[in-house]
Amino acid sequence: MDDLASLCKRRGFIFQSSEIYGGLNGFWDYGPLGCELKRNVRNAWWQDMVQTREDVVGLDCSIIMHPRVWEASGHIGGFADPMVDCRACKKRYRADQLCEEQGQALIKREDGSLALPEGIVCTACKSKELTEPRAFNLMFKTFVGPVEDASAVAYLRPETAQGIFAQFGNVLATARQKIPFGIAQIGKAFRNEINPRNYTFRSREFEQMELEFFVKPGADAEWHAYWVAERLKWYASIGLPAASLTQYVYTQKELAHYASACTDIMYAFPFGVQELEGIAARGDFDLSRHQQFSGKSMEYFDPETNEKFLPHVIEPSGGVDRIALALLCNAYAEEWVPKQGPAIPAERGKQAPEGYEARTVMRFAPRIAPIKVAVFPLLKNKPELVARARAIFGQLQRHWICFYDTAGAIGRRYRRQDEAGTPFCLTIDFQTLEDGTLTLRHRDSMQQERIHEKELLAHLSGLIDAW
Amino acid sequence: MDDLASLCKRRGFIFQSSEIYGGLNGFWDYGPLGCELKRNVRNAWWQDMVQTREDVVGLDCSIIMHPRVWEASGHIGGFADPMVDCRACKKRYRADQLCEEQGQALIKREDGSLALPEGIVCTACKSKELTEPRAFNLMFKTFVGPVEDASAVAYLRPETAQGIFAQFGNVLATARQKIPFGIAQIGKAFRNEINPRNYTFRSREFEQMELEFFVKPGADAEWHAYWVAERLKWYASIGLPAASLTQYVYTQKELAHYASACTDIMYAFPFGVQELEGIAARGDFDLSRHQQFSGKSMEYFDPETNEKFLPHVIEPSGGVDRIALALLCNAYAEEWVPKQGPAIPAERGKQAPEGYEARTVMRFAPRIAPIKVAVFPLLKNKPELVARARAIFGQLQRHWICFYDTAGAIGRRYRRQDEAGTPFCLTIDFQTLEDGTLTLRHRDSMQQERIHEKELLAHLSGLIDAW
Repeated sequence: MDDLASLCKRRGFIFQSSEIYGGLNGFWDYGPLGCELKRNVRNAWWQDMVQTREDVVGLDCSIIMHPRVWEASGHIGGFADPMVDCRACKKRYRADQLCEEQGQALIKREDGSLALPEGIVCTACKSKELTEPRAFNLMFKTFVGPVEDASAVAYLRPETAQGIFAQFGNVLATARQKIPFGIAQIGKAFRNEINPRNYTFRSREFEQMELEFFVKPGADAEWHAYWVAERLKWYASIGLPAASLTQYVYTQKELAHYASACTDIMYAFPFGVQELEGIAARGDFDLSRHQQFSGKSMEYFDPETNEKFLPHVIEPSGGVDRIALALLCNAYAEEWVPKQGPAIPAERGKQAPEGYEARTVMRFAPRIAPIKVAVFPLLKNKPELVARARAIFGQLQRHWICFYDTAGAIGRRYRRQDEAGTPFCLTIDFQTLEDGTLTLRHRDSMQQERIHEKELLAHLSGLIDAW
Repeated sequence: MDDLASLCKRRGFIFQSSEIYGGLNGFWDYGPLGCELKRNVRNAWWQDMVQTREDVVGLDCSIIMHPRVWEASGHIGGFADPMVDCRACKKRYRADQLCEEQGQALIKREDGSLALPEGIVCTACKSKELTEPRAFNLMFKTFVGPVEDASAVAYLRPETAQGIFAQFGNVLATARQKIPFGIAQIGKAFRNEINPRNYTFRSREFEQMELEFFVKPGADAEWHAYWVAERLKWYASIGLPAASLTQYVYTQKELAHYASACTDIMYAFPFGVQELEGIAARGDFDLSRHQQFSGKSMEYFDPETNEKFLPHVIEPSGGVDRIALALLCNAYAEEWVPKQGPAIPAERGKQAPEGYEARTVMRFAPRIAPIKVAVFPLLKNKPELVARARAIFGQLQRHWICFYDTAGAIGRRYRRQDEAGTPFCLTIDFQTLEDGTLTLRHRDSMQQERIHEKELLAHLSGLIDAW
């Protein structure tokens, strides 16, 4: 993880938020490459979940919503983590994580209250003087309007989903959709985590991609299975094949009382196997709660059967930052490269053997690589080469994020693009001036092929846009 | 404005946030069509400001930043609006707006304090019992971490720009850029406006598109002029030609003390001529303040002259919601359509004359239209027509947001797409089955042409993607 975090900072994928002021725990910024990576994740999701589907429409809700939304959703009452303080050194912990780190489990009493098992100590000072666990609400609170009183309290949304449920009626009335259909949203959400950790994985500000897919009551199981399969296909399309993922199927006991199924899609991060996305069959819980709290009907009128009913919902809910982090982890490789032939994996902590040189390469799928194509004139002081390279660069830039580089030997330019994860490099040399061909170099195999300028756009489009 | 707002709600462009709970003043949601409109605005900006430029890179910062950022930027001390209360009916006003509405101007005393001129009354109850104007900070406040004390206070960013300045050093170190170059960011920002108004124009949560373009000291005027011209070209590219816009050039007196120039690009909204974007030459104010407050050097080392200096900055800063609202206003038209020939503008409040029917049409430029192409089989109960239409639809959907509609007569289907602003409709009829041609109908002229299926993609691409 340290190697990856170091590359992310060095190459401009991820910076600590407000780093010049010492940072802010649980907040992260995405640099030029990270910003494009996240854009590609969002755009791939939107293309597959909204654009190319007839049965899903988009929505873009405000982050601050009416506080009744969170009463209806249960977040005001129940959205809390258990917190304990060390009375000796004043350090604060999430009680369940503290127990887990010490090989124990937090005790749930019959009455719902929580207790620490025997022997749990403060990680920092080893004191046993810990407070009882108490609930800490994870929503960030603010005040809307000039008066800071109870009537002005509002919250930053802890998930994007509730905006979709609250606007279900408006979308139904305007989008000409029939059940089954879905509403998709991408946007920021906020949780005031007690202990943000694992790099960008558990942060206080994050971005979600959520689909609420509304189905007929009784069709839940079938559609849940459909969406688990669809989502796995999608991860493959961005370069996380099924083999790199595991599914965690919730047992009956683990499910929320209203849910009939939940499957988490998990990735083996360096810090453990953790959730990228949860796909939950939530029944009619959300719509019925908003119907109850707002007094507005959330029922669907079926024009074929003349029946009215509250739709059930399947919710595939993924995290943009978590997916970006999984893509970064999955892409990262250190290799030893011989003068000729294929690279071999580097051995940790060892120097490359005689005749090999080390390279770090980010093996992003072309679809999500921040830079798709880099363009190099062989020499920067030959105007004919530069003019030709710039013409090609200008043409490609209309289609993809590209990078133009003239600095240093071609080999060094390749290495820089390897670290950025650029799948394709083009070198314009003297032969280009003679016959219009140029060198296309592939990042992973490092193989080079000569390709004619005329075929370039179609060839690259096949490599980048086909999915 | 009422007609437009009604269409926006009816067709799913814009909904009141949390409408089922009575709404939340100053917060708005974008429905399926509005959400695509905003996506198109953002993507057009990113394509022109980042992707197709070599000298601009992207950045994506957190909304909650370290509070020192806002001390450095001056927002904690100075970012306030003057507020007055009516002692009689307790209504609250922005003092400057209240004065302006009553044909007067707020008084600025020598010591910087503010006063109401004689005769200003409460709009609601006409009382003269108004408080003195006092400063109200517009930043939304929250607490990070479990303790709600002064050390935990943080703010929702009131602008995206400061994230760029705070990360200037990291971007400079990673992005291989030389001055002049820019850093671009799109994201949400929040201002706790006392009186949100004018539909989505002045809202409490909004989205900005900001570029900070760093130049050599002394090059400010030249680059400021360049960016004003570039930004006007961009507005034309999304369908707001220069003729629909006005420029407001700040006088020396109106400029902030550190600024050398500022030009606002204004649009004539139904509620008045208002700013879409400001292009300011801010000198080295922002970088120097962050250098001072963080103790970290923000200087640029010029490899050509071996000089170190603090870059100056030109800031084109636009609002996504405002631009979307201008596009909606600009697109909206009511027309009378004869059986044959071109439409004529409708006269307000009158019925269409004999032989004409009324239509509402959203004349979006193809580049920003939410739906690019609608596909209709002439009849929904002819499987050959449906199969052919669906095949064409499936192909087009991979490229653009498309809509498939089988309901009602073709004329009614055209009208629905006119209201959504869809520039192109395709009808698949019996002739299509015979010779492979179909009808392409243009929204604005309502003219129809027959086009062969084989030429469809290239033809539409020319109409939609060329810019």
